[in-house]
Amino acid sequence: MSAPFSERHIGLTEADSRAMLAAVGHESIESLMDAAIPPAVAESFRAAAEADEDLLPAAASEAETLAELRDLASRNTVTTSLIGLGYYGTHTPSVIQRNVLENPSWYTAYTPYQPEISQGRLEALINFQTMVTDLTGLDIANASMLDESTAVVEAMLLARRAAKVKGTVFLVDADTLPQTRRLLEHRAESLGIHLETVDLAAAGAADAVAARPEGEIFGAHLQYPGASGLVWDPSEVVAAVRSRGALAVVAADLLALTLIKSPGELGADIAVGTSQRFGVPMGFGGPHAGYMAVRKGLERQLPGRLVGVSQDADGHPGYRLALQTREQHIRREKATSNICTAQVLLAVMASMYAVYHGPQGLTRIAQQVHDTASLLAKELTESHGLTVQHDSFFDTIRVTGIDATAAFERLRAAGYTAHVVDDATLHLAVDETIDLSTAITIAFVVSGREDEHGVGFTSMQASHLPPSLSRTSEFLTHPTFNAYHSETAMMRYLKRLADLDYALDRGMIPLGSCTMKLNAATEMAAVTWPEFAGLHPFAPDEDAEGYLSMIDDLETWLADITGYDAVSLQPNAGSQGELAGLLAIRGYHHSRGDVHRDLCLIPASAHGTNAASAVLAGMRVVVVACDEAGNVDVADLRAKIERYAAELAALMITYPSTHGVYEHEIVAITDAVHDAGGQVYIDGANLNALVGYGRFGDVGGDVSHLNLHKTFCIPHGGGGPGVGPVAAKSHLAEFLPGAGGRDPLANPVSAAPYGSASILPITWAYVRMMGSEGLREATAAAVLSANYVAARLREAFPVLYTGDGDLVAHECILDIRPLKAATGVTVDDVAKRLVDYGFHSPTMSFPVAGTLMVEPTESEDLGEIDRFVEAMLAIRAEADAVAAGEWPVGDNPLVNAPHTARSVIEGEWTHPYSRELAVYPVPGVIRHKYWPAVRRIDQAWGDRNLACACPPPEAFA
Amino acid sequence: MSAPFSERHIGLTEADSRAMLAAVGHESIESLMDAAIPPAVAESFRAAAEADEDLLPAAASEAETLAELRDLASRNTVTTSLIGLGYYGTHTPSVIQRNVLENPSWYTAYTPYQPEISQGRLEALINFQTMVTDLTGLDIANASMLDESTAVVEAMLLARRAAKVKGTVFLVDADTLPQTRRLLEHRAESLGIHLETVDLAAAGAADAVAARPEGEIFGAHLQYPGASGLVWDPSEVVAAVRSRGALAVVAADLLALTLIKSPGELGADIAVGTSQRFGVPMGFGGPHAGYMAVRKGLERQLPGRLVGVSQDADGHPGYRLALQTREQHIRREKATSNICTAQVLLAVMASMYAVYHGPQGLTRIAQQVHDTASLLAKELTESHGLTVQHDSFFDTIRVTGIDATAAFERLRAAGYTAHVVDDATLHLAVDETIDLSTAITIAFVVSGREDEHGVGFTSMQASHLPPSLSRTSEFLTHPTFNAYHSETAMMRYLKRLADLDYALDRGMIPLGSCTMKLNAATEMAAVTWPEFAGLHPFAPDEDAEGYLSMIDDLETWLADITGYDAVSLQPNAGSQGELAGLLAIRGYHHSRGDVHRDLCLIPASAHGTNAASAVLAGMRVVVVACDEAGNVDVADLRAKIERYAAELAALMITYPSTHGVYEHEIVAITDAVHDAGGQVYIDGANLNALVGYGRFGDVGGDVSHLNLHKTFCIPHGGGGPGVGPVAAKSHLAEFLPGAGGRDPLANPVSAAPYGSASILPITWAYVRMMGSEGLREATAAAVLSANYVAARLREAFPVLYTGDGDLVAHECILDIRPLKAATGVTVDDVAKRLVDYGFHSPTMSFPVAGTLMVEPTESEDLGEIDRFVEAMLAIRAEADAVAAGEWPVGDNPLVNAPHTARSVIEGEWTHPYSRELAVYPVPGVIRHKYWPAVRRIDQAWGDRNLACACPPPEAFA
Repeated sequence: MSAPFSERHIGLTEADSRAMLAAVGHESIESLMDAAIPPAVAESFRAAAEADEDLLPAAASEAETLAELRDLASRNTVTTSLIGLGYYGTHTPSVIQRNVLENPSWYTAYTPYQPEISQGRLEALINFQTMVTDLTGLDIANASMLDESTAVVEAMLLARRAAKVKGTVFLVDADTLPQTRRLLEHRAESLGIHLETVDLAAAGAADAVAARPEGEIFGAHLQYPGASGLVWDPSEVVAAVRSRGALAVVAADLLALTLIKSPGELGADIAVGTSQRFGVPMGFGGPHAGYMAVRKGLERQLPGRLVGVSQDADGHPGYRLALQTREQHIRREKATSNICTAQVLLAVMASMYAVYHGPQGLTRIAQQVHDTASLLAKELTESHGLTVQHDSFFDTIRVTGIDATAAFERLRAAGYTAHVVDDATLHLAVDETIDLSTAITIAFVVSGREDEHGVGFTSMQASHLPPSLSRTSEFLTHPTFNAYHSETAMMRYLKRLADLDYALDRGMIPLGSCTMKLNAATEMAAVTWPEFAGLHPFAPDEDAEGYLSMIDDLETWLADITGYDAVSLQPNAGSQGELAGLLAIRGYHHSRGDVHRDLCLIPASAHGTNAASAVLAGMRVVVVACDEAGNVDVADLRAKIERYAAELAALMITYPSTHGVYEHEIVAITDAVHDAGGQVYIDGANLNALVGYGRFGDVGGDVSHLNLHKTFCIPHGGGGPGVGPVAAKSHLAEFLPGAGGRDPLANPVSAAPYGSASILPITWAYVRMMGSEGLREATAAAVLSANYVAARLREAFPVLYTGDGDLVAHECILDIRPLKAATGVTVDDVAKRLVDYGFHSPTMSFPVAGTLMVEPTESEDLGEIDRFVEAMLAIRAEADAVAAGEWPVGDNPLVNAPHTARSVIEGEWTHPYSRELAVYPVPGVIRHKYWPAVRRIDQAWGDRNLACACPPPEAFA
Repeated sequence: MSAPFSERHIGLTEADSRAMLAAVGHESIESLMDAAIPPAVAESFRAAAEADEDLLPAAASEAETLAELRDLASRNTVTTSLIGLGYYGTHTPSVIQRNVLENPSWYTAYTPYQPEISQGRLEALINFQTMVTDLTGLDIANASMLDESTAVVEAMLLARRAAKVKGTVFLVDADTLPQTRRLLEHRAESLGIHLETVDLAAAGAADAVAARPEGEIFGAHLQYPGASGLVWDPSEVVAAVRSRGALAVVAADLLALTLIKSPGELGADIAVGTSQRFGVPMGFGGPHAGYMAVRKGLERQLPGRLVGVSQDADGHPGYRLALQTREQHIRREKATSNICTAQVLLAVMASMYAVYHGPQGLTRIAQQVHDTASLLAKELTESHGLTVQHDSFFDTIRVTGIDATAAFERLRAAGYTAHVVDDATLHLAVDETIDLSTAITIAFVVSGREDEHGVGFTSMQASHLPPSLSRTSEFLTHPTFNAYHSETAMMRYLKRLADLDYALDRGMIPLGSCTMKLNAATEMAAVTWPEFAGLHPFAPDEDAEGYLSMIDDLETWLADITGYDAVSLQPNAGSQGELAGLLAIRGYHHSRGDVHRDLCLIPASAHGTNAASAVLAGMRVVVVACDEAGNVDVADLRAKIERYAAELAALMITYPSTHGVYEHEIVAITDAVHDAGGQVYIDGANLNALVGYGRFGDVGGDVSHLNLHKTFCIPHGGGGPGVGPVAAKSHLAEFLPGAGGRDPLANPVSAAPYGSASILPITWAYVRMMGSEGLREATAAAVLSANYVAARLREAFPVLYTGDGDLVAHECILDIRPLKAATGVTVDDVAKRLVDYGFHSPTMSFPVAGTLMVEPTESEDLGEIDRFVEAMLAIRAEADAVAAGEWPVGDNPLVNAPHTARSVIEGEWTHPYSRELAVYPVPGVIRHKYWPAVRRIDQAWGDRNLACACPPPEAFA
């Protein structure tokens, strides 16, 4: 009998655990957990476990799970989608699927906050940014957005803060994607924005906009091409919007932009959209990489992540995340966006699609798509006598004046799924997977004619793009988009980039609060199966039986694990889960007439996103102090509850805390909030320390978001995708996305009803293979590992906070400030020196500046943990040598870290330590050395000299 | 429209081609090919093209091909196999599937002849050898065999040459696998060996053997456990065999050996078998890694490849292929085996299965399998009153006295496939994929009882392994088998090893005669699909409809491409294809009464395997001289034909020649052979230079083998698998494996009827996506690239041979001997120095000592080819500097190459050139440097100090 999956997932053997328990001074795992977890939490869990049955099935083996996944897959029905509306069939190049999407070197990497060990994906992201700026004709693009519809919302917010006037009206073109419209409506309300729908393509629309009073509209949004397929020239409308001091947002189709004028050329301030059809499967809705590009002057307003070029300590060029001071974790309640995650893995795929096809290849694909649509229109009209709505279109045609439902059903029977706009209007969108002969077939089926003789295309169809909109400007002229068009060249480019990066396949990534655990190959297997990859998010339910069954399982399991009643899997990032949860609280209060409850209490230790999400949910933030042990200062909390009782909407609290401890008073805290009429939002970021030992719902939580990319094994993908389901008690269910299962379109926070559905098989497989017992064991192993690290390192680096029994939860904060005071060695020096020892740094200066937060997770084995501990102790000794004057403060292996191969090989060696010590500080790294591509990156230089597109090749010569 | 696959496969753009044609002095590709290819070849091709229709379908896109593959897959039916007989269901650990079988870093690597850049797979192979020696209890194992049955044949041959007596009789136990028996019978006849089948398990068998006259039997073979499932103690028989001066060969099941005494403990000289059930899917027959282990004293007799430990120029340990002087390419007609290829990729997988499970895990799996079989026996007998043949068994049970066909059909209806031994005997084998409850179900179905009540297992069943055979010795105690049991640890181990190696995903591998072209991801996709992976090779045809349809396509296409009438895909290596072809020639002559035609003419330039295969087909070899241009010396050929006319069986000739040129006289040569009554064997090793421009069948070939792992894109897998189909004119068809489609079991050269069936989708997809036109373009691009390299390098390194128009075919031989004479720099120095420049060496000293043979293939782009050319020119300049006295002959960047990172970092630098020059000889390698793991390996030291198992970890400390 093969070992159970839990033994594969959890790194610790029994012998490891025994040794580690001895080091932390406990006899058994259960004694450790009893000591660590506050009695109130444990008791609530025991009581619930006795009262309710375990809804998780017993653990299945990897082979059984794969078989069940195949069964679920077989219950999905993939038809040829003609739905379009922002989601298109696409051919994922096999070389990209295999070498990116199925390669742990890409998908297990973390967000590139440590640029020196992330140059590969940073280059891929700067390719993405270059692709977006080139195609949109704007000046600067970020490293992706969560999806097109959230990007429109972010663009609306950007317009509001950047507009010259402080109006409250945002114009929305009538021909906007329905999911974008729904999202705008749900989000605008809480933000005090008035949406106004206008037919901007109508005659006179530009004049009407220009005639509006100044100070009323701050922005306008239009879809290009329109949701109905219409291609029109919006430059006059754009000019009119700008003439009012407002900003023009254009949601543009990247593929169409190879043929028609770019938003930049049309005068737009902001372009948004999705890169899905650049080789990223529809996947029942996601994940895909949305995009946003802006004109010069708005770059510091961009939400999300931005990759820029800077230089390293030797003056060599290097990439890194630029303008990080804009980010929510720094701005907190002053934040203008709560977006943290990008869709890195998907942005990498989309950018590589552009790299592989090149400008000519993309244009050829776009032309083929347009030819197919044109032929379809010609067949529908000339051969079948039907009427189409627009004469100008790119890929989408609306047939009018027919029995749309009957035609829809005929298409279904033939294996196609179209979109019914209304009784008499059928919407047909084509893409690169549909060829000319298929277009002829589709026209036949739509018309309902039996006779197949005498028609069919005989001559090439004319273009249906307005000649005045023809694109003449060049794009993707950089060599990167023109050098890797053979599969061999592409495969090597992907390998070379992956070789630059440090991902989980190289070693531990002990990032506190990020839970970089195993992403098992069995969990990942189903993601690329066509039955999961090929579904349109608006496919009929009957086509998605496997997906819906899996989603139902997951909702049940996650509710059971957290002690809640309802779960929505829609939020496609933790931040969106937070927002959905806070909006649910807001909706609940409003439904009871408590419209003045708009104040959110947030502890000082909270992740910055908490405050940002509260602001974006229309709440005001009041900060609650922490005591010297890192816990919520209960006295201050009670005082603030009392002071703000009438306004109190919610408390947001993370459990275990952001300081990595199980706060003893959690039940008392949540009781106090409830007593004052507030709701309790428990941030699930640290759920990995609680599963099987406590439940948010049992300790007083009303709503939580979970991070499936932390606790539930969805890989970080180099900085996304994330999945952030929101879970709540029954009284909040109707205010969640999907309204507790009653309406998938209600209360949206993402474009697609089930968010990033295509990666849910990962979490499903994880829970299926672990079972309740395995999940509980994983929690204990994670807690044991963190306490072991704390025990072994606390003499060298004080552990900042501990809870009951002087224990931490699943992570520990090592205080580097005393070291800095004594030696001048900074937290940066320690983090970068760890690279020389073959490690990814722990989390730096979060939640406390000058500290490192270490989270080993349950997936590491003792050997790897000990290797890390010994590296940290060796670094401490190096710092002591600096303090002892052995090495100058300004020239030692720490301050010069990390060391590249080049830096110890080229030229004279002038440092007071040896080359060997620089790069081989311990013998273990000699045979399997990870070489960083650059030395320490100068962040400030890069921000002063902002450059966010592919640098010329000479830069690297 | 996406670019056609041929543009992805072929590296050259139109601009590249233009530039390269200018360099070689031709206006167009067709002018180049017209000049290169002899008129007789071209004319025969034109004539055939006019006469016959193109049987290849027009090129399909990648997406269309994947869809067609899915359709083929859906036409295979995977049932639960109870057939056993050497092929078992197994769980491939997902972490191994994803990170080895689906990872180009593993599957695109070449045979590790350059050990400095192959340390990863060499370590994996030494793990394999350690696994085999430990489990078999013998002293030394090789790096895998093609399959179990060919391993038995090789063991028979080994026994014949190593036995103290020179007998001609080889005893074969009656309970041997049927496919092994068939192969032994087919092979023994031509080798003058008399097989004698004996029931060695019968009472008195040992005495009978001991009583045989000395000098009669040279060896004996027995199956352990027997094909019938019987487990018995063969130690007395083994002792009796050895008492006669003969060698005892035991084919043993590796999984069973975790529970029962090893062949070594039983006294065997040789153990053989397969490692398939260690995580390698059955795949309708292969590829899998066979194994062979021998006792001390026989190691220099081992066929195939052997990995050993040696040390590098700095005294650090390193792995490399040991005892290469045994190999066929050196011994030629004195060779004792024609095996070249190992099954490296599969050996890596099997060894990693052992690494992942460890000794306890393997034992647990074996115990589960045995428990399942025991329960099945108990249910069959106690619950259902049936009779089983043996009381001692491991995993296989034979039910006697029933209507076997009826029971078989009942099982089929329930989703199981058993094996019918005879009308009254049903054979049931279980494996790790079958659990206890399934065993109960199987017993029910076998019995045919409707009633399911009142039976089922209530107590644990007793072991059915003889207590006297219980294994007590330890195995797999090395730390490697005890350190990587979590998936995280395993993933990292695989990544660390892959990081050491240079495969096609890093850069060009310009190995002449090896055709290291692209292995496209789309081609590889289907290999791991369960519908292809899950079929037993003896599954009923109705279950293999998709496979058989694909095989039929491939036979048709390959016949069309080569101008032959019949194709057999069975040979699982080129060498086996050669053997099959030569045996077909032999069979043909014998069928006509020409039993004295046993002489094979082979040009001096031929690959050593040609001669070895001829010897193993029972032929005598006479060498034909080559002229100074490298061509066959036609006068010498005619003289030898005349001299040996009555004995002439065949000419073996490679076309284009092993010297990389299109011999002008090929048609005259084949005519001369035919005129003398001989047959023409054309070695297809260089077919990549001919497809679409000439056909073996049209220039006088009667039979050829092809190398699908060269011309047809099956990846080299780090040294295997290979696939070597044999193709012939109709008069030879009945003598091929499968007898021209009449009987899949006729004339076998491999264990499985369709050889390495599971990797045939690769070639199928390649041909499907290229079409005739794409294949022809690929040939021209390969020839253009080789001629471009020759043109650019011939001033620095003389091109040894050229053909018509002073052109080479698809490869060129660069003569390093003049350089050595002038500078002391050797071909080794150039090859190893190329590593510092980021390249895999071309083929060294084959077919001419002191030369490098360069084959760029069609898949490289001009950028990569130029990078190689410039590296070679730079190396030439370095050699000139040595000649000029700038650097001593004994201390320069060439003789010290390759340089590891360690070697330029550790300690004082005492060489007369800089560290930078050592490792960064050109700027292009700085950012994306490939670091070899070791410096130059000392081959002789390793052979003097032979060690072929995992070294202690301290060795690498």
